[in-house]
Amino acid sequence: MPDLEQALGEIAAEMAEAPDRGKVATYIPQLGKVNVKKFGIAVVTNDGRTLTAGDADDPFSIQSISKVFTLTLALGEKGDALWKRVGREPSGNPFNSIVQLEHEHGIPRNPFINAGAIVVSDILLAGHRPRETIGEILRFIRFLADDDAIVIDDAVAASEQATGFRNFALANYMKSFGNLTHAPELALGVYFHHCAIAITCRQLANAGRFLAHGGRHPATGHSVVSAERARRISALMLTCGHYDGSGDFAFRVGIPGKSGVGGGILGIVPGIASLAVWSPGLNANGNSQLGSLALEKLARIMGWSIFSPR
Amino acid sequence: MPDLEQALGEIAAEMAEAPDRGKVATYIPQLGKVNVKKFGIAVVTNDGRTLTAGDADDPFSIQSISKVFTLTLALGEKGDALWKRVGREPSGNPFNSIVQLEHEHGIPRNPFINAGAIVVSDILLAGHRPRETIGEILRFIRFLADDDAIVIDDAVAASEQATGFRNFALANYMKSFGNLTHAPELALGVYFHHCAIAITCRQLANAGRFLAHGGRHPATGHSVVSAERARRISALMLTCGHYDGSGDFAFRVGIPGKSGVGGGILGIVPGIASLAVWSPGLNANGNSQLGSLALEKLARIMGWSIFSPR
Amino acid sequence: MPDLEQALGEIAAEMAEAPDRGKVATYIPQLGKVNVKKFGIAVVTNDGRTLTAGDADDPFSIQSISKVFTLTLALGEKGDALWKRVGREPSGNPFNSIVQLEHEHGIPRNPFINAGAIVVSDILLAGHRPRETIGEILRFIRFLADDDAIVIDDAVAASEQATGFRNFALANYMKSFGNLTHAPELALGVYFHHCAIAITCRQLANAGRFLAHGGRHPATGHSVVSAERARRISALMLTCGHYDGSGDFAFRVGIPGKSGVGGGILGIVPGIASLAVWSPGLNANGNSQLGSLALEKLARIMGWSIFSPR
Amino acid sequence: MPDLEQALGEIAAEMAEAPDRGKVATYIPQLGKVNVKKFGIAVVTNDGRTLTAGDADDPFSIQSISKVFTLTLALGEKGDALWKRVGREPSGNPFNSIVQLEHEHGIPRNPFINAGAIVVSDILLAGHRPRETIGEILRFIRFLADDDAIVIDDAVAASEQATGFRNFALANYMKSFGNLTHAPELALGVYFHHCAIAITCRQLANAGRFLAHGGRHPATGHSVVSAERARRISALMLTCGHYDGSGDFAFRVGIPGKSGVGGGILGIVPGIASLAVWSPGLNANGNSQLGSLALEKLARIMGWSIFSPR
Repeated sequence: MPDLEQALGEIAAEMAEAPDRGKVATYIPQLGKVNVKKFGIAVVTNDGRTLTAGDADDPFSIQSISKVFTLTLALGEKGDALWKRVGREPSGNPFNSIVQLEHEHGIPRNPFINAGAIVVSDILLAGHRPRETIGEILRFIRFLADDDAIVIDDAVAASEQATGFRNFALANYMKSFGNLTHAPELALGVYFHHCAIAITCRQLANAGRFLAHGGRHPATGHSVVSAERARRISALMLTCGHYDGSGDFAFRVGIPGKSGVGGGILGIVPGIASLAVWSPGLNANGNSQLGSLALEKLARIMGWSIFSPR
Repeated sequence: MPDLEQALGEIAAEMAEAPDRGKVATYIPQLGKVNVKKFGIAVVTNDGRTLTAGDADDPFSIQSISKVFTLTLALGEKGDALWKRVGREPSGNPFNSIVQLEHEHGIPRNPFINAGAIVVSDILLAGHRPRETIGEILRFIRFLADDDAIVIDDAVAASEQATGFRNFALANYMKSFGNLTHAPELALGVYFHHCAIAITCRQLANAGRFLAHGGRHPATGHSVVSAERARRISALMLTCGHYDGSGDFAFRVGIPGKSGVGGGILGIVPGIASLAVWSPGLNANGNSQLGSLALEKLARIMGWSIFSPR
Repeated sequence: MPDLEQALGEIAAEMAEAPDRGKVATYIPQLGKVNVKKFGIAVVTNDGRTLTAGDADDPFSIQSISKVFTLTLALGEKGDALWKRVGREPSGNPFNSIVQLEHEHGIPRNPFINAGAIVVSDILLAGHRPRETIGEILRFIRFLADDDAIVIDDAVAASEQATGFRNFALANYMKSFGNLTHAPELALGVYFHHCAIAITCRQLANAGRFLAHGGRHPATGHSVVSAERARRISALMLTCGHYDGSGDFAFRVGIPGKSGVGGGILGIVPGIASLAVWSPGLNANGNSQLGSLALEKLARIMGWSIFSPR
Repeated sequence: MPDLEQALGEIAAEMAEAPDRGKVATYIPQLGKVNVKKFGIAVVTNDGRTLTAGDADDPFSIQSISKVFTLTLALGEKGDALWKRVGREPSGNPFNSIVQLEHEHGIPRNPFINAGAIVVSDILLAGHRPRETIGEILRFIRFLADDDAIVIDDAVAASEQATGFRNFALANYMKSFGNLTHAPELALGVYFHHCAIAITCRQLANAGRFLAHGGRHPATGHSVVSAERARRISALMLTCGHYDGSGDFAFRVGIPGKSGVGGGILGIVPGIASLAVWSPGLNANGNSQLGSLALEKLARIMGWSIFSPR
């Protein structure tokens, strides 16, 4: 069995030197200020070890990775009825495409593209004020990560609120088809805030543990979701977790993952480990350039692909 | 550990009674003649057992499942250069859509949609006559299955050749972008013939063993493809193997699979088993209605999802 | 020369009896309350006669017909620089389609689809508050029609403001591409109000006179726009004035026209007359069912097609 | 009244010097050999004068302009039933787009895009062999032009037949929807040949006279089509005659026209003249760069816009 600590160290050293680091997202002004040199990685194994390398304790903007947690929460509240309002197919389009919505009458392809996550936010709003729902999401992620230090970066939320015209377009468009029950700005208020959570690699890897543990919270043993639902959320991460680069990530890395434009990626090796990597430069599909590469190398060294013989 | 033989028997019995069996494909006239009541299933475990139930020894038309084998063969001949001419992303469109080709300049999204498989046929043609390439594909599948009784159904091939106008459109369209090196009718000649292979569930499960065995042919121990390539082909099956229903199949069944409009599905449980199921009625996405359901039940009973903790 | 008065009478009588009257638009709740039995028509000839039949003095909601006047006003202020932000090609899509905007990076196809008219509203805003711009548009239409009784129906404007999610989507979408200079809700405030003008057939035919007179206001002789610009606005009406039914309207009626979902149509016979017709039931393309038919009959009787030999 | 002869001379002189002449089409190899310096223009007035300038007696490839004549012929044979198989709306897409066909189930938007003209060829085939139909079309154009010297350039036809993969794709695609009654290669045989007619500006202007004369052949006075059908064909030319640049041509030139990738344009001024212009360099929309410009200048000088007051 390869040595995980050594592998992480080698990968972090290699990534520190990598010349082609991708481009930091600038469409959210706050994100554009991040140092492209940053690279961090954290692994929490199912047998309880936590290993990190690089800038694993630097907070970064969680962005779309938060969609894994809001989906989990919404499935818990709404159950499979959620799938009447959101599909579960790869979109074949960029993360913020509106074309598919027109052809499919306001039903987003899956909960991990922006439109789908806005519907999930709308579902979580039911009966609450945005502030309450935002609080509930934050508490849920803190609970999963066993870490009350996780906070929302209000400057990022405000930045998205002020410039997220594309998301306003998506929300209003779905509203016009009746697929939002609240006012678009309310669902977006929730959405912008959960995307603005600041989190470190260590915290994120901890928050993902329940998926590596078949749905159970490892610290308490209690079930967060059923084993079947954990599998299904993982399957969605594999087929839809990297937008229009999901097929390539499955092909090269071979584990369920969810990326965000902040440069983070959450990876799950079922039964073995929860991983988080962060490097702010993005590739053409909007996924972390070095983060993807690091996970590819790590999965290969450790033999972690879910497509390997077990 | 659940009893596999008992599970297969129960599933076959349940499927025999299923009232909603989907619709037999009629766009290829020959396929429309098949009895919608048919259902067969075969499992070949990595420890060498073969179990079957129902009509597992009835030949059916392999159709798109053959694309797994032509891709394997073409990767062997051409290596990763193949990926310059075919993508590896889910298409988000029906199997025979031409829209994506226009937007992406003649490069098909993946090798499992029709357009992608036609490019693979074109690659396999290199330097040969169609008859030779067709023979090579057939010999390869016989070799994988250890069964020389597998043949091409010439009536099905002729039927497709006479009525496959959509595929002629796709091939000519890609030719106009320079993404076919041979005349469209030559690449299509290969394509129509490999889709017209008649195969039984038992034969198909045998042909798929190398993917469950990390790329090795279990009878000889020789490598058909490298372990990495076997993983990657499996990953493509998971993300792209069921056309516009791939996400749903990954969500519900959780194993790499490839379907065909003949009603067959090949499933791979890496390290454990190769499976084949057949029932000719199709669901709205063009995948076998009962075949999908049977694999969902079997994977759940046996705990075979690749998203389960290992 | 056929008798115009007799033709109008016959057409109005025929339309009063027409069994298939189309469907009143209901997506703006206020519009859904209009009586589908209504039919009015007014013709103002270049030699100064005004003839009417049916409900020609009933006010109806001008809706998209107002786009002819806002375009005229914006061209006067901005000149041909306007065409950098709006195209002048038929869209080949419904009036509220968002698909084309994604493919063409936020530049609407023409100023008569909703997205294009919202850009025109944004242009008219420059340096003003919405209330001032709305006032300017209303004054311009009153001036063209020589009628200060024309007003905005605030209930319709409020209804659109409350339910026009599709238009909010379009505006935010263009804003995300940088093709709005003001906040989307400001441009939409102007847009919703100019679409909510209540106007009669008589008033509308008067407002259109300048286009039939080569750009001059017939009452004063002063130039509203140059003769070339009047021709060009008319050309846009012909190619783009009826959304995805523009080709059919040109084919059947053969004069420049602009329709609105309130059921009105403005028609121009250059050098001869300005026409307005109103019947609230719409056909499948969102154009007045009986209004189109009435103009087709009138143009045929009078030999008014611009494609006739002169 | 401006002097037509002088106007033509000035325009021809100006065009001879024009630095930006567009790009000669190369996708049909035969067309790529034409000298980009060529420019010719011919006007046949309704009062019987013929005026020419530049290379007005050089033959060029008629290409899509022939679609005006095949549509006229097919309407004569089939009547308005033709419109069940072809629409009459601008496509909003390039001339050889296939996307719209998928969304609209194989019904082309109008008879002037390639797909629509292939359906018209299929209609003209009814009961004949391709050679007979090709002969019929050629005789019809010779009859309209009063000139038996017009011939088909077999090298161009062969060139298109060998390389016209996009058109093969369109034809097979429509066949798959049942919108061709003959084998795709038969309809294409007719299509490629009528597009390969070699014609001069003088001949083309003569062939178009019937449209300027309200449907009558000026030499005999006999009706080629009814006056209404002549208007309607002219309306289609205006809305659809320049592919995705039709709106701009209507806006700038203001007369019905039909362009071809050979660099020719046929223009109709109803009641006044038939015009033909030729310069082989194309603009971004595939229409003659200098031909469009020359017609814009001529129409402005002569006051020929159909949107001018009459």
